[in-house]
Amino acid sequence: MTVLEEHTTTQHELGRVEGTPRVPHVVIVGGGFGGLQTAMALKRKAVRVTVVDRRNHHLFQPLLYQVASAVLSPADIATPIRGVLRRQRNATVLLAEAREIDLEGKRIQCGERWLEYDYLVLAAGMRNSWFGHDDWEAHAPGLKTLDDALNIRRRVLMAFEKAEWTANPDARRKLLTFVVVGGGATGVELAGALSEISRQTLLSDFRHIDPQETRVILIEGGSKLLPMFSGTLPDAARKALMKVGVEVRLGERVQTVDEDGVVVSSQSKVKDERIEAATVLWAAGVAAEPIGAKLGVPLDRTGRVIVEPDCSLPGHPEVFVIGDGAHYAHGVDAPLPGVAPVAIQQGRATARNIGRDRRSMTRVPFKYFDKGSMATIGRSRAVAESMGIRMTGLIAWLAWLFIHLMFLVGFRNRAVVLLQWSWSYFTFQRNARIIREDAQDSVL
Amino acid sequence: MTVLEEHTTTQHELGRVEGTPRVPHVVIVGGGFGGLQTAMALKRKAVRVTVVDRRNHHLFQPLLYQVASAVLSPADIATPIRGVLRRQRNATVLLAEAREIDLEGKRIQCGERWLEYDYLVLAAGMRNSWFGHDDWEAHAPGLKTLDDALNIRRRVLMAFEKAEWTANPDARRKLLTFVVVGGGATGVELAGALSEISRQTLLSDFRHIDPQETRVILIEGGSKLLPMFSGTLPDAARKALMKVGVEVRLGERVQTVDEDGVVVSSQSKVKDERIEAATVLWAAGVAAEPIGAKLGVPLDRTGRVIVEPDCSLPGHPEVFVIGDGAHYAHGVDAPLPGVAPVAIQQGRATARNIGRDRRSMTRVPFKYFDKGSMATIGRSRAVAESMGIRMTGLIAWLAWLFIHLMFLVGFRNRAVVLLQWSWSYFTFQRNARIIREDAQDSVL
Repeated sequence: MTVLEEHTTTQHELGRVEGTPRVPHVVIVGGGFGGLQTAMALKRKAVRVTVVDRRNHHLFQPLLYQVASAVLSPADIATPIRGVLRRQRNATVLLAEAREIDLEGKRIQCGERWLEYDYLVLAAGMRNSWFGHDDWEAHAPGLKTLDDALNIRRRVLMAFEKAEWTANPDARRKLLTFVVVGGGATGVELAGALSEISRQTLLSDFRHIDPQETRVILIEGGSKLLPMFSGTLPDAARKALMKVGVEVRLGERVQTVDEDGVVVSSQSKVKDERIEAATVLWAAGVAAEPIGAKLGVPLDRTGRVIVEPDCSLPGHPEVFVIGDGAHYAHGVDAPLPGVAPVAIQQGRATARNIGRDRRSMTRVPFKYFDKGSMATIGRSRAVAESMGIRMTGLIAWLAWLFIHLMFLVGFRNRAVVLLQWSWSYFTFQRNARIIREDAQDSVL
Repeated sequence: MTVLEEHTTTQHELGRVEGTPRVPHVVIVGGGFGGLQTAMALKRKAVRVTVVDRRNHHLFQPLLYQVASAVLSPADIATPIRGVLRRQRNATVLLAEAREIDLEGKRIQCGERWLEYDYLVLAAGMRNSWFGHDDWEAHAPGLKTLDDALNIRRRVLMAFEKAEWTANPDARRKLLTFVVVGGGATGVELAGALSEISRQTLLSDFRHIDPQETRVILIEGGSKLLPMFSGTLPDAARKALMKVGVEVRLGERVQTVDEDGVVVSSQSKVKDERIEAATVLWAAGVAAEPIGAKLGVPLDRTGRVIVEPDCSLPGHPEVFVIGDGAHYAHGVDAPLPGVAPVAIQQGRATARNIGRDRRSMTRVPFKYFDKGSMATIGRSRAVAESMGIRMTGLIAWLAWLFIHLMFLVGFRNRAVVLLQWSWSYFTFQRNARIIREDAQDSVL
């Protein structure tokens, strides 16, 4: 955000927040689940808090696929960070990108500005990763931001628009083939939603498209979908997807992505297979935001910072790394997954430990309480697992709906989302099917 | 939309719409109020209809300023054209831009494709115009499309974000000065909404901005606001705007727009005045979409096509021009204004005359029935004039609310907009304050 500094001629005086003259300054990088939770949990503590984010909004990422599939609007799943912290007088927000960290000088560069901190909480999250194939991005967009979601929505809707006016059968088939790469929660939910759009919602909108012509293919390199689930749930998800018309391919690996589709290989087949598809979506990989690498400490394979039991940096107790960007492996079988509950609980734990520091108490190690995981498939199917109980079908879907609504920051979003969903559910209509122009495909 | 044709190898066979083998083909350019109304009024007529638009959505332009001022989301005021015509089996939609018209050959080029027509209805609307100062556009964006609205929203919200972290008083003052050029309905509504945001909504979101520092200045070259109103209403609008804190300047003309603000001249002052402002918004002028000029017939000063009493083209009864892009001056004191009711009534009249043609009856000239005009100022003030009755204040605002809601295409939009408004009204919170990144200010 270099523009931010254009008009700043003097260094901004940071201690202006009312009634807090010389308290410690906590800088939090990232307004996602982890960062916001940390900030909110510091509300009654004698600190001043600055939340730095390059976006002005907190994003409810679990529902991002619903924006991509044109059920919800961006504002339904995003809330301005300033709005969330509105009544918290010890907190302020800086719209800028964190660029460099000076661990010894205890300062961080945000945009052009250097902020001094007493505590630094890195909660910067993950970004899409094409695992060294950055050229794939142009043909297979990922789904991490609102822009990603709107980009995917535009591609999907444009494919239908083009197919409607294309008479050549091969060209039509290619336009109506959608490939989703990656069988995690995002891939499963996206594939289910796409299949529903193509088979039901768009049916009455077009005159020349036969919904039977459309294909949605989900490709997963591993041997099962939703690897974070145990037992029979991955298979239940596979069956549910097939029921809504998705072609699920397990144990197949993508070798190439280009403008004509993908090439996949599998151990059970001798020859690689080309799948002609105008739309390929990437849900196969994420990597930590690069700010973590600025710390100069060991990272794991996906760029996550390996942290101590209290989520702090080895040798730097004043620096915490939490959420998706942290590799936390204490007292657990495998490093904790990149899901909202981990980030939220780590945020609370970090705020608590900062409070204990101030009262000269020893810190408490973080302990994750796993409430379970869930994923939806289409309009009324889901799989869920919580404290040893597994659910599938409508019950799981209702649980998913309820839990996600409760999570949404802000009452108004909850009400609107519920209204949109009910409407969408009863009418099968997607209500956010607006293709926004942008520099690329605007012709005027 | 050149992309549309990439995969089209053969000319698409157009007569496929069920049960209508050799009926006349009506091509309608534009999915705004005029075009959609024409298409819908042709529902039971023995014609086949193709609606061509370069956007996939119908836009409720009267509420565009509410998207710009972050009250509503794009999907709240836009509906997919396909969705509107879903159940009308004699209508189809082509997402493409109308480029050339071959009057003699009775065909129109849309994208790369040529469509043959028996009737052509041009309902292409207006675009922003900077009256020969196209270099002003970069500094003073206009408000005609969803992208315009989101662009304005981003600029306004970014100005506040920057001001929050700017200590220099001159730079702060410039960031917190908003200039709206043009005192028509768009300018008046935009200025009122901006003033409200800056004085009330954003108050609690920022720590260092004093709402008293913000200035909203509305500049109008003429001697009154809302020139389409008669009597005391323009003055009532001026007073209402001043009450919500807008500085209204009448009889002042903008001489220059640049990145530092505007220079205005007025007859009552000897010297030109420079107003330093980081945000300048353009609501001063529109011109017809250029497709009308392809007809090779006389246009008026703003590029509108001068039409016959039945809205047809002189010498070409099979071509109609309706809505904002038509200059209709038969039986009226002044050419009809560019408002939705004119477009809607002309669309209905055109469909009726096409129907009369088919039954070999003579056409009926168009006659406009003026139901009145209205404009809102902020949260609960409005001015309205209908059939000789003038209203101001809350009553006018409630009338405005009611009429606009009734107009909104689609029940679901109505319900959501009502919910958003009520919420916004009772809490003073803007709920769509999401700054989307784009190529320009995304830093990753």
